[in-house]
Amino acid sequence: MIKPQTLKGFRDFLPNDVIKRQAVIKMMRIVFERFGFDPLETPALEYAETLLGKYGDEANKLLYLFKDRGGRQVGLRYDQTVPLARVVSQYPQLPKPFKRYQIQPVWRAENTQKGRYREFMQCDIDIIGEYGLLTDAEIIACVLETMKTLGFQKIKMLINDRSVFKNLKIEYVRAIDKLKKIGKEDVIAEMVKYGADKEQAAKFINSFDAKNTTPVINTLFTYLKKYGLVENVNFEFDPTLARGLDYYTSTIFELVSDDYTAGSLGGGGRYDKLIGQFIGADMPAVGFAFGFDRIIEAMEQLKLTSVQNSFTKVLVTVFSKDLREKSIELVTSLRGVKINSEIWLNIPETEEDYKLDKQLKYADKKSIPYVVIIGPEEAKAGKVKLKDMRGRTEEIVSETELISKLKLKNQNGK
Amino acid sequence: MIKPQTLKGFRDFLPNDVIKRQAVIKMMRIVFERFGFDPLETPALEYAETLLGKYGDEANKLLYLFKDRGGRQVGLRYDQTVPLARVVSQYPQLPKPFKRYQIQPVWRAENTQKGRYREFMQCDIDIIGEYGLLTDAEIIACVLETMKTLGFQKIKMLINDRSVFKNLKIEYVRAIDKLKKIGKEDVIAEMVKYGADKEQAAKFINSFDAKNTTPVINTLFTYLKKYGLVENVNFEFDPTLARGLDYYTSTIFELVSDDYTAGSLGGGGRYDKLIGQFIGADMPAVGFAFGFDRIIEAMEQLKLTSVQNSFTKVLVTVFSKDLREKSIELVTSLRGVKINSEIWLNIPETEEDYKLDKQLKYADKKSIPYVVIIGPEEAKAGKVKLKDMRGRTEEIVSETELISKLKLKNQNGK
Repeated sequence: MIKPQTLKGFRDFLPNDVIKRQAVIKMMRIVFERFGFDPLETPALEYAETLLGKYGDEANKLLYLFKDRGGRQVGLRYDQTVPLARVVSQYPQLPKPFKRYQIQPVWRAENTQKGRYREFMQCDIDIIGEYGLLTDAEIIACVLETMKTLGFQKIKMLINDRSVFKNLKIEYVRAIDKLKKIGKEDVIAEMVKYGADKEQAAKFINSFDAKNTTPVINTLFTYLKKYGLVENVNFEFDPTLARGLDYYTSTIFELVSDDYTAGSLGGGGRYDKLIGQFIGADMPAVGFAFGFDRIIEAMEQLKLTSVQNSFTKVLVTVFSKDLREKSIELVTSLRGVKINSEIWLNIPETEEDYKLDKQLKYADKKSIPYVVIIGPEEAKAGKVKLKDMRGRTEEIVSETELISKLKLKNQNGK
Repeated sequence: MIKPQTLKGFRDFLPNDVIKRQAVIKMMRIVFERFGFDPLETPALEYAETLLGKYGDEANKLLYLFKDRGGRQVGLRYDQTVPLARVVSQYPQLPKPFKRYQIQPVWRAENTQKGRYREFMQCDIDIIGEYGLLTDAEIIACVLETMKTLGFQKIKMLINDRSVFKNLKIEYVRAIDKLKKIGKEDVIAEMVKYGADKEQAAKFINSFDAKNTTPVINTLFTYLKKYGLVENVNFEFDPTLARGLDYYTSTIFELVSDDYTAGSLGGGGRYDKLIGQFIGADMPAVGFAFGFDRIIEAMEQLKLTSVQNSFTKVLVTVFSKDLREKSIELVTSLRGVKINSEIWLNIPETEEDYKLDKQLKYADKKSIPYVVIIGPEEAKAGKVKLKDMRGRTEEIVSETELISKLKLKNQNGK
């Protein structure tokens, strides 16, 4: 016997999970498409050389790399930005600017402490082929509209200009990125650890000032206001924002909510040099990755999601061997008019009467809201019994009445 | 520089591909949910021991197995049946019968000749926990309704009872499964190769008769007729059907179309012993896996899909530096009323007038059906120019008129 188990950091999503996650993805896609982003999908496996050396040394250690049966060194998708860079390089015929969204799982061999997974969903939007800051504004506006559509109210995009840190070692940048989490002293200590002079590091860390915007920030903010967004409400300059990834070149973003303080809900920025690693020339690019799992967690905390165990609206029970045909015919009729319906499947030849209790218990366990019963009396009268499992009420109705009642309850979203 | 390339047998799906594939998936989900199947998702990686020894020796060779960073022997999802068996064993609290659908990619290190991929989508429906043949009928009825919804007309489920081959070596079963493809002689030769007596093999192969149904087949067919399905039109007994996988125990199915002869469009059957490998006791199970890529190919051949490069309905162009704010405001208004809209993103400070030609070419390349122009005259009159890119017509309209025109064109599905 084999022990049924998932790998550490990997999750099964049972129906109530998938229903919730798919509902969020659906809302996201609608907004992405409204902003003119089209969907892209790339393979789970890439050549290792495509992935290596893009994210930084620390990330390289988190890549799932292995040799395939043909002896090729391959790796699992670590994010969706590098595969996008590869795609844009491989298909020069794609119209530019190329606006795409991508919603696929990624894999990272992380330490699996508190809410870190080794397989998780990423939702990215990116625009390739434009230097102009209207592009960055478009990304930010789309992200904020997405969060609004999901029901978030207090949500803000923190923005900085990474070029301010251009001459710093990436290790310093990663230290600065932790400023809000670990405080000034620890950041300075970490910078010193990587070779910085303590006094100079302290001076640099203390120099951050929300008034020191750059021309890039000023132009970007002008555009954002044109989208109807409000400074310091919907977006804010944050001179301490750094972001750890190697490839950012200019604007960087991080999405936070006052209602959810466990961490940022996503991040992004401009990476004008990454695609050049494939095509040998700069290609402007800017994008954002939503932290899908955190968003789901935040939505649960803020009660923005509802629990639904099943899409099934009605269970057609089977009363007895003699009446089973009637039930099969009824469920076929209900499906014919697009009502999500189940039929009780256990109808053995060996039993005359099937236990209704067991059937009702099944409907209850799955939270199926309605149950239909066709007993001998109902069959004789050409009617059915409709049971409301939540209201615990029941009524005798004709098939036509049944359909119109269930359809009505469909429309109400119940 | 790194060469941008995908691994052999792996594919990028550019927007026009994803749009088509997602439309098919959406239609499938609607039917699955109408039949009371709920969605499940499982990890891409499983413990190797979960996957090994389930599919047969040949399949074992096609598994993507490797050692992860923690030294665990792991493997990529090969199908969705074994992970389902693991899930059902791991979560005994799931209500039974458990009806689930699952639509995720799987990975197989196949020879990549003609239309065989190493990463491909699978769409499965399965019912766990019921021996009764109404369960098998439910699977078949749902599959046929799905295909009808996708637009297929000549579609038929071939059905056999695998228990007829119960005492045969699996190698013989796999040989018989190729009967229609390679003919009697080659099947007999293959059976002989694996140790069969030639005369007996020939006798066995010649014994297949469409009149030799089994009690299982007879009961199943009675139920299928109750679903309104017609024998020899929608479903058919095929005594030569064998299916190669090890784990089938009773009914087996294969979906074929007279309109598409490149191969079956999916297959399935009953596997009452597989889950027992995890829980130590039999657990009845029956299911079907759609061959998603073949279905897409067949739909293209039969012109059941349409080509769409983008979800964008309208491009708002930018006429000049002075008028760019007007365009940003307009695109924000259009998005506010849920019209999928893009704005031209290249609006440099350094140029007074932006080239309209380039913008129209972009709309054309992406097949965006409408373009809006706000030139000085339109701006002065508080109007916009609406250009129909397919009809090559244009008209001057107010913003209100623009919205109602684009909304109307939305409803018509154009």
